[in-house]
Amino acid sequence: MTSAPPRETGKDGPAPDAGSLSRAGDLFQLLRDGRARTRAELALTTGLARSTVASRIDALMLSGLVGPAGEASSSGGRPPSRFAFNPAARVVLAVDVGATHVIVAVTDLGGKVLAEQRLPQLVSDGPETVLERVVEEGRRLLAEAGRSLEELAGVGIGLPGPVEHDTGRPVKPPIMPGWDGFDVVRFVQRSLPVPVLVDNDVNIMALGERTAHWPEHDNFLFIKVATGIGAGIISSGQLQRGANGTAGDLGHVRVPRGDDVLCRCGNYGCLEALASGPAIARELREGGVDAETGSGVLKLVASGNPQAVHALRQAGRDIGDVLATVVNLLNPSVIVIGGSIGQAGENLVAGIREVVYRRSLPLATSHLRIGLSMAGDQAAVLGASHLVIQHVLSPSVIESTLQAAG
Amino acid sequence: MTSAPPRETGKDGPAPDAGSLSRAGDLFQLLRDGRARTRAELALTTGLARSTVASRIDALMLSGLVGPAGEASSSGGRPPSRFAFNPAARVVLAVDVGATHVIVAVTDLGGKVLAEQRLPQLVSDGPETVLERVVEEGRRLLAEAGRSLEELAGVGIGLPGPVEHDTGRPVKPPIMPGWDGFDVVRFVQRSLPVPVLVDNDVNIMALGERTAHWPEHDNFLFIKVATGIGAGIISSGQLQRGANGTAGDLGHVRVPRGDDVLCRCGNYGCLEALASGPAIARELREGGVDAETGSGVLKLVASGNPQAVHALRQAGRDIGDVLATVVNLLNPSVIVIGGSIGQAGENLVAGIREVVYRRSLPLATSHLRIGLSMAGDQAAVLGASHLVIQHVLSPSVIESTLQAAG
Repeated sequence: MTSAPPRETGKDGPAPDAGSLSRAGDLFQLLRDGRARTRAELALTTGLARSTVASRIDALMLSGLVGPAGEASSSGGRPPSRFAFNPAARVVLAVDVGATHVIVAVTDLGGKVLAEQRLPQLVSDGPETVLERVVEEGRRLLAEAGRSLEELAGVGIGLPGPVEHDTGRPVKPPIMPGWDGFDVVRFVQRSLPVPVLVDNDVNIMALGERTAHWPEHDNFLFIKVATGIGAGIISSGQLQRGANGTAGDLGHVRVPRGDDVLCRCGNYGCLEALASGPAIARELREGGVDAETGSGVLKLVASGNPQAVHALRQAGRDIGDVLATVVNLLNPSVIVIGGSIGQAGENLVAGIREVVYRRSLPLATSHLRIGLSMAGDQAAVLGASHLVIQHVLSPSVIESTLQAAG
Repeated sequence: MTSAPPRETGKDGPAPDAGSLSRAGDLFQLLRDGRARTRAELALTTGLARSTVASRIDALMLSGLVGPAGEASSSGGRPPSRFAFNPAARVVLAVDVGATHVIVAVTDLGGKVLAEQRLPQLVSDGPETVLERVVEEGRRLLAEAGRSLEELAGVGIGLPGPVEHDTGRPVKPPIMPGWDGFDVVRFVQRSLPVPVLVDNDVNIMALGERTAHWPEHDNFLFIKVATGIGAGIISSGQLQRGANGTAGDLGHVRVPRGDDVLCRCGNYGCLEALASGPAIARELREGGVDAETGSGVLKLVASGNPQAVHALRQAGRDIGDVLATVVNLLNPSVIVIGGSIGQAGENLVAGIREVVYRRSLPLATSHLRIGLSMAGDQAAVLGASHLVIQHVLSPSVIESTLQAAG
């Protein structure tokens, strides 16, 4: 699709196998499923010449992304070698920045966690402080996992606020003073010169939960219920960010029950003003129950306080009211509830189920499952790792990696 | 990805250019943008050998899908030939089945309408009657356009109800007696033995409107307001059908204003019970205004009846209430309002805008456009045509077409 005039390459053009190297990535995409294959099998599946397959496998072996995987059985003669994707070839730094904590993990290219650390850290300390801590901890964990910086394929970071997808900059994040417009990618790359991908925490939690536990579900929702309420949307197998990267913002959808409750956004009746951790705590306080925060609510629920259980279930109903609309609109097959309040127990989920199954269309709910997050605390780092893996193993990046190596 | 043991192909394997034919489709995907290119340009862009490009272009010329497109300028010697996609090579039959009409059109592979006819036809006459009429009219239009059955690449059909995407069968369509589970594809293929693709009308209207007027917008919503209310959702450039093909069903989302209005689905307060054509007519009748149907409402609005104008605007506000949630959730850049009531004027759209801009998040609405359908009556046939074009020009189908021809 170049608009430059054609370069004259001589009448015969390049040698017939000039495409070998640039096409080695195609073989790699085939091998990503983890299955070991012989050269003959690869030739048969791709329709490529055996000699072409051999030279492409050589290039992939050189990069380390593909390795030998034992020998195939043979009816006679020397058994043919088999090759497979080698997820241990490189590592990823996966980072979950929360309001009051940071989780840093090192994973391989299969998303397997090799080392992990959770640190108390206020996001409000600002980007330099937080990201320097992340880099320092990342270096330490790499060493702990016995891996070097040269093996680092990329860094994935989840932030608790809206992020502009193309640039990785936070956009007016409400709970992140000092972060608005900050160039996270460039700052991290000064210390770690690799691809850095940034997204909001709910999106990467959706990616992490789906990749780890629901890979066969292409229409998938992750609902985070904590200080805020948001959704990570996977439709047709793809994370959906919308035109400006704000897709999934459920916190400020209006809920019928809340017409007289003022939200911090200036509107009345937002879901977040009714069903978030702080909102439930406020409602309990208004009823004379001592609850300061969302975690205070959870302690009351755990101790069997009936008012707290009731409030949590009612919050579930309010969330269900919004999700009933979302289910009719997107027809997902799985909705996973996570976040500090969301993953705390069955009372909230019971309230959600109650309303969704009552209000949504029978056709849309006949196969719908609604359940608690299984990845739990790890959803975000798993997603951050997956974001990087998707990128660095994508056809175009693999091509340029191989070409640079060749 | 075969699990069969590798076939022994001999030590030398197939000849080095065995991939030529199967890869001709790659060149075709490049040429689909309509730009004319020389063999040298194609070799440069793809990295393929000039001799390989030449043999692939020959295969594509043989199929008619690519044709000569004049000569390029040259610095000396014989000017090189240029080649381009030839959308006139084949034709598509595009069909919009409505509740009381059928539109049949013949288009080329660029979606250009070559012949078109609108017929009064009740969908309730049942699938055999309707589809026989469609086939008959299709044959007539093909002849009118001077094209033969051999040139027919496929048939696309939009139906006014839920359709199971994989099989093309209607699923419990409320206004289509006799169609539930009917094998539309097989019935049509008895007369027209080509690929037949079936989808619900709102999905194909979204495809048609976006392809014809908003191709650069990847996050796009089409809202049909008529006897029912539904949405066609395009996210990340792709039509979204959900896990069971029911995505976009907005008609039975609850609206705050409607808590005492019973819907035909058995719930109270559904959007369709408040803001569809029949619902507006009912509300006007309750206010003493003589309006039997949605088209009656439109006549009153056109004559300046203030109660009808008010009712239409209020219906817009109710729809806006639901769309405010959808905008927060999906963050589209364009919402197009169509359908017989939707495309009738600015009053409905004004009501929608009023609520969406008040209730949705500023970040999500800062670049959002909400407007009337430009494709109008033609949205569905354009979409049905596009559905077929997407399919028959997709890499896998092109490969098999070329291989069958080779």
